[in-house]
Amino acid sequence: MNKKYILDESIIPERWYNIAADLPEPPAPPLHPGTLQPAGPDDLAPIFPMGLIAQEATSDRYIAIPDEVRDIYRIWRPTPLVRATNLEKALETPAHIFFKNEGVSPAGSHKANTAVAQAFYNKQAGVKRIATETGAGQWGSALSLACKFFGIDLTVYMVKISYQQKPYRRSMMQLWGAEVYPSPSDRTNAGRAALAEDPDSNGTLGLAISEAIEVAAQDDDCKYSLGSVLNHVLLHQTVIGEEAIAQCEAAGAYPDVIVGCVGGGSSFAGIAFPFLRERIAGTRQTRFLAVEPTACPTITKGQFTYDFGDVAQTTPLLKMHTLGHDFMPAGIHAGGLRYHGMAPLVSHVVNMGLMEAVAVPQTKCFDAAQLFACTEGIIPAPESSHAIKAVIDEALRAKEEGAERNILFNLTGHGLLDLSSYDAYLSGDLRDYDHPEEAIAAAMARLPKIS
Amino acid sequence: MNKKYILDESIIPERWYNIAADLPEPPAPPLHPGTLQPAGPDDLAPIFPMGLIAQEATSDRYIAIPDEVRDIYRIWRPTPLVRATNLEKALETPAHIFFKNEGVSPAGSHKANTAVAQAFYNKQAGVKRIATETGAGQWGSALSLACKFFGIDLTVYMVKISYQQKPYRRSMMQLWGAEVYPSPSDRTNAGRAALAEDPDSNGTLGLAISEAIEVAAQDDDCKYSLGSVLNHVLLHQTVIGEEAIAQCEAAGAYPDVIVGCVGGGSSFAGIAFPFLRERIAGTRQTRFLAVEPTACPTITKGQFTYDFGDVAQTTPLLKMHTLGHDFMPAGIHAGGLRYHGMAPLVSHVVNMGLMEAVAVPQTKCFDAAQLFACTEGIIPAPESSHAIKAVIDEALRAKEEGAERNILFNLTGHGLLDLSSYDAYLSGDLRDYDHPEEAIAAAMARLPKIS
Repeated sequence: MNKKYILDESIIPERWYNIAADLPEPPAPPLHPGTLQPAGPDDLAPIFPMGLIAQEATSDRYIAIPDEVRDIYRIWRPTPLVRATNLEKALETPAHIFFKNEGVSPAGSHKANTAVAQAFYNKQAGVKRIATETGAGQWGSALSLACKFFGIDLTVYMVKISYQQKPYRRSMMQLWGAEVYPSPSDRTNAGRAALAEDPDSNGTLGLAISEAIEVAAQDDDCKYSLGSVLNHVLLHQTVIGEEAIAQCEAAGAYPDVIVGCVGGGSSFAGIAFPFLRERIAGTRQTRFLAVEPTACPTITKGQFTYDFGDVAQTTPLLKMHTLGHDFMPAGIHAGGLRYHGMAPLVSHVVNMGLMEAVAVPQTKCFDAAQLFACTEGIIPAPESSHAIKAVIDEALRAKEEGAERNILFNLTGHGLLDLSSYDAYLSGDLRDYDHPEEAIAAAMARLPKIS
Repeated sequence: MNKKYILDESIIPERWYNIAADLPEPPAPPLHPGTLQPAGPDDLAPIFPMGLIAQEATSDRYIAIPDEVRDIYRIWRPTPLVRATNLEKALETPAHIFFKNEGVSPAGSHKANTAVAQAFYNKQAGVKRIATETGAGQWGSALSLACKFFGIDLTVYMVKISYQQKPYRRSMMQLWGAEVYPSPSDRTNAGRAALAEDPDSNGTLGLAISEAIEVAAQDDDCKYSLGSVLNHVLLHQTVIGEEAIAQCEAAGAYPDVIVGCVGGGSSFAGIAFPFLRERIAGTRQTRFLAVEPTACPTITKGQFTYDFGDVAQTTPLLKMHTLGHDFMPAGIHAGGLRYHGMAPLVSHVVNMGLMEAVAVPQTKCFDAAQLFACTEGIIPAPESSHAIKAVIDEALRAKEEGAERNILFNLTGHGLLDLSSYDAYLSGDLRDYDHPEEAIAAAMARLPKIS
């Protein structure tokens, strides 16, 4: 029996899959924050190149992946589909557990899939510099490498708590040539306003986004780049699911349930949407389970409504699950999951009943991560550990029910640059943040009023 | 054209290759440090299990790899053989550069190849605990995971300068269940003696070995394990070269020169010996180039003579290239290359004129590492960067000569847990240690006198 399935470069997809083409109901459009009318390409042109704007709005089912992008994908793709036999044994479960290991990319996560694509389309448009934000640093490091490959300068606003907790990800970005600033910074109006309110602010993804957009909007040669949430980002991530379909076929194990962590939702969309295409077509009955932290329970406790993508209210309004654009999540170690909103496409799919969600506390995730590290050898990113916790619960349920079930999850990244988080865990210094209900209610009260 | 060659599990070797069976002259035997007579199995029995002692002395050409070991190898093997096309372009060289990426193992280096084998034979012998040393932590982390897989307790003495420079490798070992102490420690006679002499000692591998052997020798249930130098360790590493031969064939590119860094010599032996078998058989004319740091130039500046493997003079005497068992190398960032001696088999092969060596300073290695990271995406371990520096020199020489040449090197590990070293490099805080000639002369004067 194989442990890893099909690693031949011939299965690297030649096209990305756009689920919008197959949804029974279309998702609600983004709205211009001033006019409240659907935002058009011109509204996005100051901050994105046209190649990406076109992908944001397209109804084409498939988009060809440029050769230049596929050439770089070949550095780490196809990523392995691995049977977690040792974890199965430890759990004594009849379930078969598979994971797609996106941690093998040079930057250590799935973020490289869209970083390379975004850098390509920016280069094509003659962009000289990109500004972006990053949480735990997974996105910032992936885009640093992609920009280095295409000869584009990069400025990264890194959420301050992660800047402090994950110094190695900063080093990585700098080694690949990026400038990195902790956010909130004193380099932007948005940052200065946040520092004036709270000089010790941990920062949030929403705030770092505001800083990066502000910088990009002020400079004609500079564009902005987002690592999740938007349609084109989810599109690029579908290489994960397309490869997984071919690999699951080789393994003779079509998944009964697919599990992934969700911050902005792009990695989970990436593995899930190609399989969801088959469910929508009626050929399969797969379940989809999104896993979020109890400290930032966007789907399970948020509202499905129009909200801003950032704190400074500069983005178009997106219809999505949200905790409110100025919700400040606790400083959990899964920095990539500390986002108040959710990808509109993921929210829409959840709202149609095609996806479920569950929230889990961080200490249970670290328990799960250590079990995974000690059985399968791989140390997962704290973000990915949320999926592992839910997978273990699913596998134990299968054991109770005596059901032989195929579980597939997305191992979105490795945790080698998160070992300080594991130190905190091993020292007993971690706590959970289970009920941010008051903070959520307060942020919800500040949602924009859109009928 | 493929970027990565054959990743199918069917090429994982079924047997290790023992070069001793094919050498034109046999290597000199180890000597008992008391009697100066060839050391027999009984001399090693207090610290090693019989399965490994038998491999240390065997003249069998091939040793079958146990199924339990191959099952674990399948977590990361076969490792990719990668064509470094982007690096070639950056150098504008007609040379074709290939690397074998051993950094994909869960612990991040080639050390896992022997760690798993050693843990297996110890488990088979009923051993409950292993004591070992580690330099930069590559070996300690690999053995931690291997011991976790086989249910063996582990105590690691980590060279103090690395314990301080690489805190994440300590976290990794602890996550996998090991106890880790900085060496010199106050837990052993050898450690206390070193601290009495210099309370601020950086430590050395030779000293950490003394601590671990002392602990193992005092406890019947505890054995000792070494991550390099010895014949059985080199044997286990030959999976690298055996896979590479199959992959080079698929690439249609038999190497003209094979390059690797050397600390104790096991990773380089691992990639080189299977190819050397073909050179000895007269079918190929491959060159072999071992690369060491100028701060610890064992082959290029040492003597080929009998010496101890450790500071406390507790090991058998080994005939090898040595700088003297109490030579204290400067605190370079490639902690795994700070060893005074060299594997006897590597030394013997060098002495027969079958291998060359070169010494390079660390700042040039970091320059090379950054170029590699920015072209191929992978951040190399500081140890591996020594090979990259020499490969770049070879590729530039090929360019001068207009020669299309196949260069293969061993990327022994990734540098994701060495990013503090890259920080020092990027800040301009690194220096070189080019001429430790007085220190070498002094240590040489204390060599044991063996005719």
